[in-house]
Amino acid sequence: MSMPYDEMKLGEECGVFGMYAPVGENVADSIYYGLYALQHRGQESCGIAVSDTEGPKGNTTCYKDMGLLNEAFSSEKLEKLKGNIGVGHVRYSTTGASVRENAQPLVINYVKGVLGLAHNGNLINAEELREELAYTGAIFQTTIDSEVIAYIIARERLNSASVEEAVGRCMDRIKGAYSLVIMSPRKLIGARDPYGFRPLCIGERDGAYIFTSESCSLDTIGAKYVRDVEPGEVVTIDSEGHINSDRTRCIPECQRGRCVFEYIYFSRPDSYFDGVSVYKSRILAGKYLAEDSPVEADIVTGVPDSGIQAAIGYAHESGIPYGQAFIKNSYVGRTFIKPGQEARVSSVRVKLNALREVVEGKRVVMIDDSIVRGTTSDRIVRMLREAGATEVHVRISSPPFLHPCYFGTDVPGEDELLAHNRSLEEIRRIIGADSLAYLDVSRLKAIAGNLQICTGCFTGKYPVD
Amino acid sequence: MSMPYDEMKLGEECGVFGMYAPVGENVADSIYYGLYALQHRGQESCGIAVSDTEGPKGNTTCYKDMGLLNEAFSSEKLEKLKGNIGVGHVRYSTTGASVRENAQPLVINYVKGVLGLAHNGNLINAEELREELAYTGAIFQTTIDSEVIAYIIARERLNSASVEEAVGRCMDRIKGAYSLVIMSPRKLIGARDPYGFRPLCIGERDGAYIFTSESCSLDTIGAKYVRDVEPGEVVTIDSEGHINSDRTRCIPECQRGRCVFEYIYFSRPDSYFDGVSVYKSRILAGKYLAEDSPVEADIVTGVPDSGIQAAIGYAHESGIPYGQAFIKNSYVGRTFIKPGQEARVSSVRVKLNALREVVEGKRVVMIDDSIVRGTTSDRIVRMLREAGATEVHVRISSPPFLHPCYFGTDVPGEDELLAHNRSLEEIRRIIGADSLAYLDVSRLKAIAGNLQICTGCFTGKYPVD
Amino acid sequence: MSMPYDEMKLGEECGVFGMYAPVGENVADSIYYGLYALQHRGQESCGIAVSDTEGPKGNTTCYKDMGLLNEAFSSEKLEKLKGNIGVGHVRYSTTGASVRENAQPLVINYVKGVLGLAHNGNLINAEELREELAYTGAIFQTTIDSEVIAYIIARERLNSASVEEAVGRCMDRIKGAYSLVIMSPRKLIGARDPYGFRPLCIGERDGAYIFTSESCSLDTIGAKYVRDVEPGEVVTIDSEGHINSDRTRCIPECQRGRCVFEYIYFSRPDSYFDGVSVYKSRILAGKYLAEDSPVEADIVTGVPDSGIQAAIGYAHESGIPYGQAFIKNSYVGRTFIKPGQEARVSSVRVKLNALREVVEGKRVVMIDDSIVRGTTSDRIVRMLREAGATEVHVRISSPPFLHPCYFGTDVPGEDELLAHNRSLEEIRRIIGADSLAYLDVSRLKAIAGNLQICTGCFTGKYPVD
Amino acid sequence: MSMPYDEMKLGEECGVFGMYAPVGENVADSIYYGLYALQHRGQESCGIAVSDTEGPKGNTTCYKDMGLLNEAFSSEKLEKLKGNIGVGHVRYSTTGASVRENAQPLVINYVKGVLGLAHNGNLINAEELREELAYTGAIFQTTIDSEVIAYIIARERLNSASVEEAVGRCMDRIKGAYSLVIMSPRKLIGARDPYGFRPLCIGERDGAYIFTSESCSLDTIGAKYVRDVEPGEVVTIDSEGHINSDRTRCIPECQRGRCVFEYIYFSRPDSYFDGVSVYKSRILAGKYLAEDSPVEADIVTGVPDSGIQAAIGYAHESGIPYGQAFIKNSYVGRTFIKPGQEARVSSVRVKLNALREVVEGKRVVMIDDSIVRGTTSDRIVRMLREAGATEVHVRISSPPFLHPCYFGTDVPGEDELLAHNRSLEEIRRIIGADSLAYLDVSRLKAIAGNLQICTGCFTGKYPVD
Repeated sequence: MSMPYDEMKLGEECGVFGMYAPVGENVADSIYYGLYALQHRGQESCGIAVSDTEGPKGNTTCYKDMGLLNEAFSSEKLEKLKGNIGVGHVRYSTTGASVRENAQPLVINYVKGVLGLAHNGNLINAEELREELAYTGAIFQTTIDSEVIAYIIARERLNSASVEEAVGRCMDRIKGAYSLVIMSPRKLIGARDPYGFRPLCIGERDGAYIFTSESCSLDTIGAKYVRDVEPGEVVTIDSEGHINSDRTRCIPECQRGRCVFEYIYFSRPDSYFDGVSVYKSRILAGKYLAEDSPVEADIVTGVPDSGIQAAIGYAHESGIPYGQAFIKNSYVGRTFIKPGQEARVSSVRVKLNALREVVEGKRVVMIDDSIVRGTTSDRIVRMLREAGATEVHVRISSPPFLHPCYFGTDVPGEDELLAHNRSLEEIRRIIGADSLAYLDVSRLKAIAGNLQICTGCFTGKYPVD
Repeated sequence: MSMPYDEMKLGEECGVFGMYAPVGENVADSIYYGLYALQHRGQESCGIAVSDTEGPKGNTTCYKDMGLLNEAFSSEKLEKLKGNIGVGHVRYSTTGASVRENAQPLVINYVKGVLGLAHNGNLINAEELREELAYTGAIFQTTIDSEVIAYIIARERLNSASVEEAVGRCMDRIKGAYSLVIMSPRKLIGARDPYGFRPLCIGERDGAYIFTSESCSLDTIGAKYVRDVEPGEVVTIDSEGHINSDRTRCIPECQRGRCVFEYIYFSRPDSYFDGVSVYKSRILAGKYLAEDSPVEADIVTGVPDSGIQAAIGYAHESGIPYGQAFIKNSYVGRTFIKPGQEARVSSVRVKLNALREVVEGKRVVMIDDSIVRGTTSDRIVRMLREAGATEVHVRISSPPFLHPCYFGTDVPGEDELLAHNRSLEEIRRIIGADSLAYLDVSRLKAIAGNLQICTGCFTGKYPVD
Repeated sequence: MSMPYDEMKLGEECGVFGMYAPVGENVADSIYYGLYALQHRGQESCGIAVSDTEGPKGNTTCYKDMGLLNEAFSSEKLEKLKGNIGVGHVRYSTTGASVRENAQPLVINYVKGVLGLAHNGNLINAEELREELAYTGAIFQTTIDSEVIAYIIARERLNSASVEEAVGRCMDRIKGAYSLVIMSPRKLIGARDPYGFRPLCIGERDGAYIFTSESCSLDTIGAKYVRDVEPGEVVTIDSEGHINSDRTRCIPECQRGRCVFEYIYFSRPDSYFDGVSVYKSRILAGKYLAEDSPVEADIVTGVPDSGIQAAIGYAHESGIPYGQAFIKNSYVGRTFIKPGQEARVSSVRVKLNALREVVEGKRVVMIDDSIVRGTTSDRIVRMLREAGATEVHVRISSPPFLHPCYFGTDVPGEDELLAHNRSLEEIRRIIGADSLAYLDVSRLKAIAGNLQICTGCFTGKYPVD
Repeated sequence: MSMPYDEMKLGEECGVFGMYAPVGENVADSIYYGLYALQHRGQESCGIAVSDTEGPKGNTTCYKDMGLLNEAFSSEKLEKLKGNIGVGHVRYSTTGASVRENAQPLVINYVKGVLGLAHNGNLINAEELREELAYTGAIFQTTIDSEVIAYIIARERLNSASVEEAVGRCMDRIKGAYSLVIMSPRKLIGARDPYGFRPLCIGERDGAYIFTSESCSLDTIGAKYVRDVEPGEVVTIDSEGHINSDRTRCIPECQRGRCVFEYIYFSRPDSYFDGVSVYKSRILAGKYLAEDSPVEADIVTGVPDSGIQAAIGYAHESGIPYGQAFIKNSYVGRTFIKPGQEARVSSVRVKLNALREVVEGKRVVMIDDSIVRGTTSDRIVRMLREAGATEVHVRISSPPFLHPCYFGTDVPGEDELLAHNRSLEEIRRIIGADSLAYLDVSRLKAIAGNLQICTGCFTGKYPVD
C-alpha cells in the first residue's frame, strides 16, 4: 500500500469494482465503500455508474469527478445513483493527462444499449488500434484505453451472440495489461488479460456478486472472497445469478506475468492476489533480505506503509528487534501545499518524522519497498541520523529499477531512475547509507507464491513482446 | 433577449462562437467575451476549445463546465487555453439532460486529428442516425446531436478530399435545424441547415475571422459584421485566411424556414439575423399590434426585457405614451432559491416590480412577447392592478402557441400550453386582463423583413416533414 | 439603481432589513427575498440573523458570507435559520476592507442576551469612539462602525431601563449617517440619524412588522408600506406588536440632510424615500435638464439603469422622442473576468452595446446619472458614434462631483474626480461629447420633493461639521 | 495520536503554534507546516494570523476557515499572509459549536494595537467571567474562552506596564486549563496554566523562536526543541530575540496536574511533554499491562494508531511476538459518508481491516488506548474473530472512564460511558472479549515520568476544585 500521494513513488493505473445484486437492491453504497478500500490504487479521479436491470432502457446513472472519493462524492450524489448493477473506478494521478474527460467508468451507448466499463492496466497496441478504428470512421473523446476497448466490444458485438462473446473477441485483438469490469444492461463481466498482469477477484454477499481489484475491499463491505478471475478468463454474471466462465483465452501458467509490484507495493497487505497473501509476500521479502544481506544492527524498521511488513520479516529472520522508527502524518493529502522556496522544510519532513526514542544511539536497518529517483531515500536516511541513529543500513524489498513498464506502472524515464547506469556503491553514497542491499531478482518468484510473474522493470524481459 | 432563467418562458438550444486568428494570437479571451454576449441563449453549461494551428498534433485544450461563464471560468482556467483557433458554446438548461457530459464544444479525435464542434439547433432524424451508426459499431458517450454529427463527419471524411467536403456530405444526411461551427487542425468551418432555422453570421477583426450565433457578439469584441452564413451554405476559413463557400446545398428562399422566435424573443435586439434587425422586428410587431388591436389607454408598457421594444413600437403607432412600468431585479440568477411554502412571496414578485408612479390610475397596455403556460402573465397583470392600474390590456407580440417545435425551441407539451384548446376569451379570463390580443400569424413574415420563416409552433405547418 | 458591479460608479454602504413576526412564524425567507430587492445596495457580502422570541436564551442563528445572496445562501442554509425575529444585511464592496469578518449583521452577546445589528451609513466620529472605548478596555474584532455602535449600546444598557433607551443614549454619542435595525431578544428597533442621510421605512404584513432601507423590498414580499422612520426617531416593535416611537432626538426639517444620491442613483426607482418617489425624482431631473440645457436632437436615450428615467423625463419635456439606444448584458456579474492585455475588448463593451437601428444617422441626447472618473463616459460616447450617431449631447442628472463624502458614499479621492479642477469644456473634450451639461445644484431640492438634502459632494457644505 | 475523525474516541480542544522570526522573514509557511504536525489535535477549523513587527500599525492579516489545513488553505491564501510574527491554531470538532465564528486565532484590536491569540484548553470560570465582563459593558462575538481571555488582557493592559504583565494579571483571574500563544505588535508570548494541563514548548531555528503544543512540530520545520514552558510560567520573546520568563505564578510540582491523556492518546508519539517521551509512556503502559494482566497468547497487536506502541511494550515485556493485525485506511477523512441504512457495511470496517494472515488460528492480545462508548471495541473484537482469531484478550492502556473532564477533553456524558455503573465482567461481555483488563490507576504517574498528573476522569479527583 502506498504512502499516499507520494510523488517519489511509483504509481499505478487504477482500481476497479463491479457489483450485481438481486433486483430491488441498490449497489452504489457498496461500490462506494468498496472503492474506499481501493483508494490507494488511484487518487486522481473516481466514479460510479449504476443501472437497474429491470428498469427502462438506458436507465444508467453515472457520476465521476476529479479527486478522492471524499472530495468527489457527497451523500446527495450517492443517493442519486439507483440500481442493482454497477461499476466503479479509482484512477491514478499522472501529471498532464489528469483531466475530467479521462475519469472512469466509461459509459457508452451502443447497439445493444448501455455499457459501463472500468479498466485497470495498459494496452501496448492501443495506438495501433485507435488508428485502425479511426480509419473506419471512429471518433475518440478521451485518451484512455477503455475507449478503445469499448469500441472494439461494440463492433464485435455485431457479430457475436452475446456481450461476453464480444468481450472475448475484443480480447483477441487487444494486447497488454487489462483487468476489466463491464456492465451491460443485464450482465456483469469480469475479465483479465492472459498474462494476468493486474489482479481481479470475485466476491459474493447474500446473492450479490462482486468483481474487484483487491480482496480487501470484499472485507470492507462484508462480502466473502470466492476466487480470482483467472488470467485470460472471462467471467459473466447473468440476471439469474449464474457465473459463467470462458477460459478459451487462458495460456499456460509458465507464460503468465503477474506484476510483482502488486505484491511488493501496490496492493494492500490484507489482499490476496491469485491466492497469495500480499502480507506474506512482504514478510518473505524481508526474510530473504535478512538471509541474503545480513548486517549487525540494533533495530529493524520499515518506511511506512509498505516497508513495515518487510521489516517485520527481516526482524523475525535476523533476530534483531523490530522498532517503529517513523511516525507518518496521515493528514498530508492530495491538496497539500508543497514547501517551496523555504529550504528548511521538506515534504518528507511534513509526511514523516523519526522517533528519537527508538533510534537514538542505535544501528538501524531501514527497509523500504523501492528506490525510484532516490530523493526521498536520501532525506529519510538523514532524518534517522539526525534523530541519533549511529548507523543506517538500507535494505530494499525489490530489485533495482532499470527498465520501463508498458503495462500500467508509472515508472519514470530511465534517466530519472537512480539505479540506471549507477553501481550499488554509487547509489549507497547518494542516499547516504552505511550499507545498501536490494532484493535479488531470483527471490521474486518465491515471494509471489511461486506463481509466474513479470519482472520486466528489473530485467528488461517482458512476457509479451 | 430572455428574462434570464425564467422557467415560464421558452428556452432555446444554445449559442455558438468560433474564431480563427493569425498564428501567434490567442483567441480564448475573445471567444469568452463573445460568448458573454450570447449567454442569454444558454445558461446551463458553457465551454471553449482551442488549438494552435502550427502547434504539434493534438494540441487542443478544452474547458467546459456547468453554469454561466461567470461560474465556470476563472482567469486561471482562461489563461490555460492557448491557441489561435477555437470554438465556444453556451448551452440552454432543460431539466433532466442537464449533465456535464452534454456540455459543448464536443472535442473528438478522428482519422485526421482533432475536431472541435459546437452546434445550435435540433436534428429530427438524430435517433434514426444514431441507430444506423450503432449498427455499424459506433459508441456514444453523450446524448447530444453534436456527437451524431461528429460521427458522420468522421466517417464521410474517409471518402472526402477535405474536411469541408465531409461536412457537406454530413449535411446530406442530417435533417433539422443546425448552425454549426467546426474547428479542424487548420480550418474553421461554419454551416447552416438549408432551412436556416438558426442564425449564424461571419465577422472579421484584424485578419481574424469569426462565426457566431448573433452579430451582437461581434460588437462586444470590436469585430465587424461581414455577412450571414446563407442557409445551406458551408463556409470554410483556411490557414491563409481565405473564405471559401460551398452553396450546393442551398435551396430556394421560398422553401426556407427561419425560426421567427429568433426575431420575437431569442436574439438580442442589437443583433441582425439574415440582415434583418431584431430590434426593428420587435418595433414592427408592436406597430402591427397597435394597428390590428387598438385600445383606448393612457400608457403602453413592455414586460422586460423583450416586450420593451414591441411596447415602444405600439406606443409610437398608437400615439399612447410609452412608460416604464416595471423594474427588473437583475440579481435573480440561476441559483436563486425559489419561494416555497410561503405563498406571500412569488418568484415573479422577486424578479419584477410594478412602478406605482407610472401606472396608478392609468389604463395600461402591457406588451409581452409570448404566453406559454400563462402563470407568469396572470401574476404580472395582478401586479399592475395592485399598483393602481385601472385597466390592463394585454397584447402579445406573437401568435398563440399551439404546436410543438422540432427544431430546438423548448416548447412544453401541448397540455401545458395555455392556448391549447382554449378560446381567446378563456385565456383573457385566466390571465385576468381587460382585453387580450395576439399578433396575427399573417404579420409574421413582415416582421422578419419578408424573409421566409418557420411558423410551425403557431400553425402546425413546418418547412420539413 | 446601479449598473451592477460597475467600478466606474459610486458605491454605497449597504442595505438593511429587519422583521418581527408573530411567534411561530419564520422570518428568514422573507428577509432573504427582501434583501434580494436591496442587492443593488451592496454586493460584497450578505447575512441574516434570526431568533425565536419565545425560545430559550441565546437561540440566535446567523449566517453570513462573502458574495451575492445567490452565492452565499443555499436552501439548506436558509432552512437552518429558524425564528420569528431577524435582521439582514447586504454590504457594498470596497476593495481592501472586503473581508468576511466585516460582513453583517453583527451578532453579539451582552448583558441582556443577544443583540443583532445591521447598519447602513458611516460614522464620522468612529475612530474617536473606538479609542475612547479601547481606553476603558474594549476589544474590537472588526473594522465596521456597527461594532462601535453595539459597544456603546451595551454600555449604555447598564444605565438604561430598556434597550431602546440604550439605543437612544448611543445616538447621543455617535455622529454621522446611520440607519439601524437592531434585534434584541424580544424587540425590533429601527433608528435613523437626526439628519436622515440614509433611508429606513416601516412595513407591515399580517401582523408582522418590517424595517427596510427601501420600500421596494416591501412590494417584493407582499407587505404594505406604513411610513418612513423619521430622521432622529427610534421606533420599537415589542412582543405585543406595538409600535413605540421616541422622537426626542429629531431636529427641525431645515437642519436635515438626506443624501440626494439616494434619489439620483442609489435607490431603486420603485422605492419611496421619505415619501418621495425615486422614479419621479429622476423624471424631474430629466425635465430640469431639458429646461436648463436644451439641444436640438433626434432622440433622447439613457445609460442603463438609472439614466433611463431621467431620459424619459427629458424626452417628455423636450418633445424629442425617447429611444432605447443601449442593450445591457445582465450576466456580467461580480466574478466577471475583466479584459486585460487585449485592448480590443473593453469591460464597457461587454456590459453595454449600442443599438445601431436606434442611433444611426441621429443626433443623440445621452443622459447619465453622474460622471465620476470619466473613463466609462468616454467609451460610451464613442460607442454611440461607432453605431452611427452624428452628434452626442451628454446630459448628467446630477451636478459635478467635487468633494468627498463622509456619510457612506464611496466617492474616490479628489484627484480621481474628473470634474476636480477642470472646466466644463475640458470635461466635454475628455469624454468626447458634442455638448455637455450637468444638473444645476439649485434644482436638487426640487427633485427631492423639496425635502432638506445634503449636497456636500457638490458644494462642500455638509449638514454636520 | 488519534485515529482521525473517530467519533468513538475522545476529542481534545486544539493545537497552538506561534513563531517570531527576525524582521524580513515570513513565518506563515512554517506555521502552516507546524500546524500540519498538530492536525491530529483538531480537525474542525484552522487559522493563521501574522504581522510585520516593523510594519505600519495594524498590519495584521488573518485567514481562518472550517476544515483541515488541506481544505482551508491554498497557496494563494498562504502567500497573502506576510509578516515575521504569527500564531496559528487547529481546532477540535465538537458537534454544535462548530461554526466559523469560533475558529481561532482570535485577532483583536485593543488599546495597544492588534493582539492575536490561540488557546488550547478549557476555563472552568469562563461563564462567571463573561457575566462579570458583560456587567461592565463587554460584548461577545464568539463562544470561545479565548475571547474572555483577550478581554481580560485588554482590560488589565490599562493598568500594566507591558502586555506580558497584563497576561500575568489575566492568569490571576482565569481558572482551568490554558496553553496560550499570544502575538502583540512586537512580542510573542507563551503561557501555561499553573497546573500545566496542556503542553506547550519552546523551539528555535536560526534566530526564530517558536511556541507549539507539541515538540513533533519542531522536527517538521527543522527547528530544535529548547524546553517546555513551565506550568504557570509566562515566556515572552521580544524584538531583540530575548526570552524573558515570569515564574511568579508557578506552584509546587506536587500540586500540578498534567492531562495524562496527552501521554496515552492525544499527543503524537514523537512528541515530548514536559520532557517525557510520549512514545516511551505508551511503551511503559504496555509493559505494565503485561505485568499486571498477563495472558497466554500467540501474538500481541495494537489498534491503530495509538494502541501500537503499547502493544510493542506489551510484546516486549511478555515475550509474546508483536504482530500487525490491522490495516488502517488512511483515506477515511472528515467528509467520509458514513454508512447508513445498509447494515452490512460499518464505519469501522471501512476504516480498519484485520489481517487474516496474522491472526488466523491465533490467540490474540489486542491493545487499545481507551474504551469510551464501547461500540467500536465490540466491532473490532468481532473483526478479529471473523479473521480467524481463536481468542481475543483486550487490554486497555488507560483506566476506565468514569467522570467528566472540565479541562478541555471532550468526554461524553456519564450515561454514555461504557464503564459507568458496569462491572469489568459486564464490559467484557459487551465487547465480546475473552478477557479484559485496564491499566491500573496506580500506574499512571509512572508512565508520565513520575510527573504530577491529573487523573480526574478516572478518579473524580481534580487538581482544581
